[in-house]
Amino acid sequence: METGSEAILLSGQSGGVATLTLNRPAARNALSVALMSELEAALARLAADPTVKAVVLAANGPAFCSGHDLKEMHGLRGREAVASVFDQCVRVMTAIVRQPQPVIAKVHAMATAAGCQLVASCDLAFAADTARFATPGVNIGLFCSTPMVALSRGIGRKAAMEMLLTGHPIDAATAERWGLINRAVPSETLDTVTAEIAALIAAKSSFTVKTGKEAFYRQAEMGLDEAYAYAARVMTENMLAADAAEGIDAFLSKRPPVWRED
Amino acid sequence: METGSEAILLSGQSGGVATLTLNRPAARNALSVALMSELEAALARLAADPTVKAVVLAANGPAFCSGHDLKEMHGLRGREAVASVFDQCVRVMTAIVRQPQPVIAKVHAMATAAGCQLVASCDLAFAADTARFATPGVNIGLFCSTPMVALSRGIGRKAAMEMLLTGHPIDAATAERWGLINRAVPSETLDTVTAEIAALIAAKSSFTVKTGKEAFYRQAEMGLDEAYAYAARVMTENMLAADAAEGIDAFLSKRPPVWRED
Amino acid sequence: METGSEAILLSGQSGGVATLTLNRPAARNALSVALMSELEAALARLAADPTVKAVVLAANGPAFCSGHDLKEMHGLRGREAVASVFDQCVRVMTAIVRQPQPVIAKVHAMATAAGCQLVASCDLAFAADTARFATPGVNIGLFCSTPMVALSRGIGRKAAMEMLLTGHPIDAATAERWGLINRAVPSETLDTVTAEIAALIAAKSSFTVKTGKEAFYRQAEMGLDEAYAYAARVMTENMLAADAAEGIDAFLSKRPPVWRED
Repeated sequence: METGSEAILLSGQSGGVATLTLNRPAARNALSVALMSELEAALARLAADPTVKAVVLAANGPAFCSGHDLKEMHGLRGREAVASVFDQCVRVMTAIVRQPQPVIAKVHAMATAAGCQLVASCDLAFAADTARFATPGVNIGLFCSTPMVALSRGIGRKAAMEMLLTGHPIDAATAERWGLINRAVPSETLDTVTAEIAALIAAKSSFTVKTGKEAFYRQAEMGLDEAYAYAARVMTENMLAADAAEGIDAFLSKRPPVWRED
Repeated sequence: METGSEAILLSGQSGGVATLTLNRPAARNALSVALMSELEAALARLAADPTVKAVVLAANGPAFCSGHDLKEMHGLRGREAVASVFDQCVRVMTAIVRQPQPVIAKVHAMATAAGCQLVASCDLAFAADTARFATPGVNIGLFCSTPMVALSRGIGRKAAMEMLLTGHPIDAATAERWGLINRAVPSETLDTVTAEIAALIAAKSSFTVKTGKEAFYRQAEMGLDEAYAYAARVMTENMLAADAAEGIDAFLSKRPPVWRED
Repeated sequence: METGSEAILLSGQSGGVATLTLNRPAARNALSVALMSELEAALARLAADPTVKAVVLAANGPAFCSGHDLKEMHGLRGREAVASVFDQCVRVMTAIVRQPQPVIAKVHAMATAAGCQLVASCDLAFAADTARFATPGVNIGLFCSTPMVALSRGIGRKAAMEMLLTGHPIDAATAERWGLINRAVPSETLDTVTAEIAALIAAKSSFTVKTGKEAFYRQAEMGLDEAYAYAARVMTENMLAADAAEGIDAFLSKRPPVWRED
């Protein structure tokens, strides 16, 4: 179910997996204010939809996403107008991290600047082996400072600094080796690989997945003792919930589980 | 010296290297409350023993460790009973981190859930190339939230999320590439490789090793300036201690050092 | 322009790239108090020089840098004298991190202890494929506790612990795989590779580079929300500055930018 051929963000759903597709191919899917607004709204809508178990973020056209819309940015006047765009970008990126469902980037082509940040912000990312990744803001005098927040939490410091200081693109194999993406796969298998992993995750207890995803990012910001105290509480609550009781019973009885808290 | 063929945790020592061996082979070394209690007690005993310079954590049977004992967990009733198990698990894992001696995992086979957490919690880990690693709690409705505290401090976010969300096992080569283990080696060489590294570490000044290990995990939780201020103090005290004086003198005199503060 | 054939730190500049060369070859460029003082002074001088756009840190002789000067350390008496040396070392290492220009290590040979820390502290590092890296303090009873602050922020925990606990050197290919350096290259190309990357960075807006580098290390110590709030402010200010306006205009006009805020 796509919302229309002219829409700048397409939305579909199949078997518990929602797909959001950036659809400004002529603009290399630049994140205009309008597109970011649509992304924010779509993520909020999916977050509230109990039939959605996983989200795939995809894109149409020759690029995955080229980052902020420079033509639009160029026309902004004044600190408030500029800040408003970056604040919105931050809301979109953190919405992905806070989304109750896992968000999986399906990167068929070049991801640049805030487009690279989208990939880094997703929980998982699969890419065509022809895709490339760059944070080239430095080339236009505008350092990729918000993209680096996501980038530097996913890959090593020397690697991140190289991308940020040189602006050079890296290929998909390098992105996999550095940990920016989970896997580079042949272009023609990208749809299948992504669909399989999304379907796999959609078959889990979404209560459990939501609980775990939230805890993952929260504990990552804590010291060891605080993280363990928090995670032990999360795990205790998880264990007392119906899906864990069902899952463990099914496992011990060697039968498939039937999740209830979806 | 093993404590008995029926014991669920075997303990031996040779030349400064203590070995703790999980010995519930039929239960795939599941971490029952009894086994965790034995581990806690054994680690505390070794911590207080000045003849122990390094600890190897090994296991008997077809698996390294399958995580919590699900049969036991299934019978727990009430929040306090459940919380008590996870709290104990946290004590065991943090005991490894706080252990004055380095703890080296020798992983001959599958390490799952809290078993994978044991590996992640050790200072070093060597594995047979046939070993595998998984955090499959999501498959039974119980997200591996405490294991991910250790896992996510050792490997990248996308890799950790893939293990946690899919529950899929990774092989030893992948575990090495991602940094979960130090090295995957042919099965038949695992004992030798682990013994060599343990012996190597056991020959160092254990005062120095203890000082450094403690500082490593403490500074990891600090900002750069605080970490450096702390590490400079640690290094100053280390330098003023007898073993550094001996070590530097021996180095400059081109003779082997004789450690005193063990 | 070198400051003299006897100088323990050589300084040169060409086309916006300053090069500092450790020049105690017979002492394997050990970081004596005198050499650290020269490094501190040179970095401060370069920081204030608007014609310097990037800094290369190189070394002469059979080693890149062997760490602290053990002969000098051996003669120190009392806590204050020892603390003073480590405090100075911390100042040099944090000066590299705080330097407004990117600092690029050009590692032609062995980098040991605080020498390895120098490499880890630089924003980028390129090495000859024959170079090696070690934190062998444990072998002389003096754990590499300050080096590990930099090391553990650049590579994974198990890898860092292996270097710190064994004292064993790793080769350049391993250093690249672990993320301690950006690239290992054939010895005979190291000068060219480093010069090219330094020239590339020197051609960027140094206002933009300085802004981004500072933000990189600051946001790395924050939680996600704080990091994003901070980075959005940085990016807004960057966007309002002349070089971003020029860079975006040049990009949209398909002409090369002319930076003004250098």
